[in-house]
Amino acid sequence: MGVRDIGLPERVPSGGGLPRRVSIWEVGPRDGLQNEKAIVDVGVKLEFLDRLAEAGLTTLEATSFVHPKWVPQLADAERLLEGLVRRDGVRYPVLVPNERGLERAFAAGVGDIAVFGSATETFAKRNLNSTVDGQFSMFEPTIGRALAEGLRVRGYLSMCFGDPWEGPVAVEQVVRAGKRLLDLGCFQLSLGDTIGVATAGQVERLLNAFTEAGVGIDKLAVHFHDTYGQALANTLAALHRGVSTVDSSAGGLGGCPYAESATGNLATEDLVWLLDGLGVEHGVDLGSLVRTSVWMAERLGRPSPSNVVKALAG
Amino acid sequence: MGVRDIGLPERVPSGGGLPRRVSIWEVGPRDGLQNEKAIVDVGVKLEFLDRLAEAGLTTLEATSFVHPKWVPQLADAERLLEGLVRRDGVRYPVLVPNERGLERAFAAGVGDIAVFGSATETFAKRNLNSTVDGQFSMFEPTIGRALAEGLRVRGYLSMCFGDPWEGPVAVEQVVRAGKRLLDLGCFQLSLGDTIGVATAGQVERLLNAFTEAGVGIDKLAVHFHDTYGQALANTLAALHRGVSTVDSSAGGLGGCPYAESATGNLATEDLVWLLDGLGVEHGVDLGSLVRTSVWMAERLGRPSPSNVVKALAG
Repeated sequence: MGVRDIGLPERVPSGGGLPRRVSIWEVGPRDGLQNEKAIVDVGVKLEFLDRLAEAGLTTLEATSFVHPKWVPQLADAERLLEGLVRRDGVRYPVLVPNERGLERAFAAGVGDIAVFGSATETFAKRNLNSTVDGQFSMFEPTIGRALAEGLRVRGYLSMCFGDPWEGPVAVEQVVRAGKRLLDLGCFQLSLGDTIGVATAGQVERLLNAFTEAGVGIDKLAVHFHDTYGQALANTLAALHRGVSTVDSSAGGLGGCPYAESATGNLATEDLVWLLDGLGVEHGVDLGSLVRTSVWMAERLGRPSPSNVVKALAG
Repeated sequence: MGVRDIGLPERVPSGGGLPRRVSIWEVGPRDGLQNEKAIVDVGVKLEFLDRLAEAGLTTLEATSFVHPKWVPQLADAERLLEGLVRRDGVRYPVLVPNERGLERAFAAGVGDIAVFGSATETFAKRNLNSTVDGQFSMFEPTIGRALAEGLRVRGYLSMCFGDPWEGPVAVEQVVRAGKRLLDLGCFQLSLGDTIGVATAGQVERLLNAFTEAGVGIDKLAVHFHDTYGQALANTLAALHRGVSTVDSSAGGLGGCPYAESATGNLATEDLVWLLDGLGVEHGVDLGSLVRTSVWMAERLGRPSPSNVVKALAG
């Protein structure tokens, strides 16, 4: 495909230390599709998941057990999981908001779940109808029961870098909430810039604060949105701090290029281009992934917002 | 405008050294508009330049004296410069390809010019009908005469990080060509990733090679295109190496979001968001700039590809 045939991007490691390998946590089927206007047919979703696995992605956040009233795009979670042909070596985590969601996950035979917390009071109120402290009494039984059943649990923490109602978020507040999710048994904590306002210095500061608080960098993942165009620069800053799990969305799903306010996830293809250039392993076949995103964009009836997809699909 | 009213982005300097202040070299009116399909009326261009100055930008690359056969979008260069009301403290450099272009620049009373060289043989042949060595015999009299008349001359070097025909470009080749432009009297050298393929490690390596070859970092500017989504991450890498002049294009002009292969410049707004977050001074009023880019996008009949413009104009 295009430029890559003549050895581009050239592989040149960046100074200052980088992980040898990065695990890409692909959130397109969940975080991407839940933020698209179109409701995608379950058959298309299943083919999407299969093509992402075929492209070499090994963690595919498949769907969500949030109530369909809130996320109609993923109301087909049970049907999706019923039809899913799981591949060896691929994990298919599912978002679970509470014990009711966990029951659905048990019933569907899910092995990996993720819970979703807030670093700020306003978002805890709006998204969870709770408080920053109160949310943990909801997570505690959910995570406890999941762990008791042998599930692996990831913790998401949203609004880690800025909140649309509260503005800047105190680092101590983020570290405190994040540590509680880890203490409850989450194997990994994904730090979300939910509204995409963060810049590189903030990313460094927050990661440093977590490590100073005794949290290993291997426990931390980053989850950036490209609302203000900062997602990849923030990722670079996180890689330099040793982060080796990065969330991204195939084709930048979730950020419609025609929307007045784009809030898409970092595009997996743009991340892969960076990692290729830095010589960091990731296991993904970029050509195969781009073809998948082009195919999905056709299903959604609009072009992919990913720059790499636009460039290589031309 | 939106999120900024509550103190976002939060100002947090990035570790590893950053310039206190960055000079933004605004290329929208030239590099941006010459790559747009639409041919913009000279009156609109003049208002655009005036609004950019009003927003606080102090270097506005106004137009080009490349032959109109090659760049019909800028065929009105003389009329534009005739109508231009120059502001105190603002520079309006003009691209000049050769002595014939320089004559036009003299006639128009231009005080700042830029010449445009290639780091690779294929692009030197295709863009200048010359060779990497041969181009300097064209630049030598152009730059010499310009300097003798008291003009300030900038040197652009294109294809510094990858060439669509040749693939990776040897660092020594780029340093050699760049040094020749500086030796001929250019006050500054802008290193261009013309096809947008570079990643952060390459940027660091090239900047290090220039400083090892005795070129002061204050002589170097960076010029990134966002074809593969890397422009801002590359800029961050350059800032950490001490670069303090960055080229960008208001609203990301030059990269149509509907084009199959987007090749736009780094958007000035996305750069400003990063600099604001890092606490690096730049002198630009972001709200005013966004309003200007929205206004220009309306003139072009399509939305701005800049993420910040999309987010703040929503």
